[in-house]
Amino acid sequence: MSLRIIATGGTFDKQYDPLSGQLIFGDSILPSLLERARITAPYRFEPLLALDSLDMQDAHRQQVCEACARSDEAHIVIVHGTDTMRETAEVLGRAALPKTIVLTGAMVPCRIDGSDAQFNLGFACAAATLCEPGVYVAMNGQIFPWHAVRKNRNAGWFEAS
Amino acid sequence: MSLRIIATGGTFDKQYDPLSGQLIFGDSILPSLLERARITAPYRFEPLLALDSLDMQDAHRQQVCEACARSDEAHIVIVHGTDTMRETAEVLGRAALPKTIVLTGAMVPCRIDGSDAQFNLGFACAAATLCEPGVYVAMNGQIFPWHAVRKNRNAGWFEAS
Amino acid sequence: MSLRIIATGGTFDKQYDPLSGQLIFGDSILPSLLERARITAPYRFEPLLALDSLDMQDAHRQQVCEACARSDEAHIVIVHGTDTMRETAEVLGRAALPKTIVLTGAMVPCRIDGSDAQFNLGFACAAATLCEPGVYVAMNGQIFPWHAVRKNRNAGWFEAS
Amino acid sequence: MSLRIIATGGTFDKQYDPLSGQLIFGDSILPSLLERARITAPYRFEPLLALDSLDMQDAHRQQVCEACARSDEAHIVIVHGTDTMRETAEVLGRAALPKTIVLTGAMVPCRIDGSDAQFNLGFACAAATLCEPGVYVAMNGQIFPWHAVRKNRNAGWFEAS
Repeated sequence: MSLRIIATGGTFDKQYDPLSGQLIFGDSILPSLLERARITAPYRFEPLLALDSLDMQDAHRQQVCEACARSDEAHIVIVHGTDTMRETAEVLGRAALPKTIVLTGAMVPCRIDGSDAQFNLGFACAAATLCEPGVYVAMNGQIFPWHAVRKNRNAGWFEAS
Repeated sequence: MSLRIIATGGTFDKQYDPLSGQLIFGDSILPSLLERARITAPYRFEPLLALDSLDMQDAHRQQVCEACARSDEAHIVIVHGTDTMRETAEVLGRAALPKTIVLTGAMVPCRIDGSDAQFNLGFACAAATLCEPGVYVAMNGQIFPWHAVRKNRNAGWFEAS
Repeated sequence: MSLRIIATGGTFDKQYDPLSGQLIFGDSILPSLLERARITAPYRFEPLLALDSLDMQDAHRQQVCEACARSDEAHIVIVHGTDTMRETAEVLGRAALPKTIVLTGAMVPCRIDGSDAQFNLGFACAAATLCEPGVYVAMNGQIFPWHAVRKNRNAGWFEAS
Repeated sequence: MSLRIIATGGTFDKQYDPLSGQLIFGDSILPSLLERARITAPYRFEPLLALDSLDMQDAHRQQVCEACARSDEAHIVIVHGTDTMRETAEVLGRAALPKTIVLTGAMVPCRIDGSDAQFNLGFACAAATLCEPGVYVAMNGQIFPWHAVRKNRNAGWFEAS
């Protein structure tokens, strides 16, 4: 079984820019993370977008949907910002592709101490391997169907809706 | 659904002792890792053993088996050394408990740069959540049934046997 | 010989806030850094301010100056934001206290991968131990007198002026 | 003023070998550390040896001494294992080269959480920049002349002798 891992940006992949003092996007950290994970299952990495999910527009969501549609792999992990992860999941859910698509992200960037990124990536990869075709959000050690999840912004976690 | 996470030591949990210059066991890193993962699903952590898996004897494997048998949670992750992970999985497999038990570990200690520990922990937690009752080894981004896995010591990974 | 280490905030000490997605100030990382450095020379840590140096006003600089004046230790390291480090150094330089005062900071927060914070702290502690009384900026592996240094914002380093 | 930084191995530079489970030597971490430190002062890095200092023989110490003698830079930092740092310092001290030579190392490898390596490297670079010609051990936030220092193995630190 093969996995496709698609980067779209999000907190997970932000890095610090010493000149501006801002968190920005550069090269994705995912290739080095996947190497570190010593994965022997076949997988392909696709750097599709590099966006804060608050900046994600309908056209971007369409791009994500098309990337999933044309993916040779039927098991897909999408690394995505948490703020509009549910919205992208909904677009993918309504598209009803015959694939297992798992969205994940991080509350703390992977390059910052105390990040949840590596755990979440591992969790999402197993979920994408094991779940029935459908669209899911995998965060906080839980797997939510796309139509029954929301981000609780005050608490900083995802919960059933 | 609740998860039990049992520590038994292994490379995953080794730490550096500045006085002896050796990698030893102290307090498990798992509680801080699980907190960092921001898990909202209910789980319980059990620090059972702190052993290099090469030092694990039949009596220790029996202890692991009993810990699984008396666990209130039916979904269990065991963090274990890689060298004899298969042997412990076999003892658990033959016990045929009506639970989902997933063994994982790390090729590089969690406290050392470039570790696979956090990815593997996330991967194993999702596998323990989703798999049918049975005993599995979750390493290298793959899920192996207990009776069909071996560690390839030369390559440093697990593979189907 | 005793050292006083004064925290004023700055990039060095910023941490990530998962709820706002911003880099903010919380408890200083300096006590844990100093413990990790295994310093056996006597030193005292003083958390004086927690500010982005762009937000530092004359009154804050006066506070820093007073903290140096009343310090029992004659060798002082000040961890400071880089953007106005020179301005604070000038206020301290004009005060002409009979003490060795070394300002340092970081271009990347200590909690982010690839930070220069620990190196700079070590460099500044040695400079504060060894330099003649006076006020210095210790950054980029160099020690600059307060009146002959500027930050090159385009390059992201300090240089002689 | 130029600096030469010479690697000889030691705990500072050990890395984990996933196949053997041992701490071994590979490529030195120093070039990436020095880059991260954003040093603008001119310096040259010389990977001379890669040894546990307990394995260092007279011939190795002679090699270190010759490297210092032929160094174009008069300010030298040597990264060395802690166990026989004093012995190498003595060989260098008796050679009485007209240079400032500072030996440093780490109690915890740089690649392991909680390491003192980066602080010590920064501390040693400033000491090498500022001290009079002579041979020094820079550890634990202190600068010891070569003839008046010993490692306290039980406590895990250096102290005046």
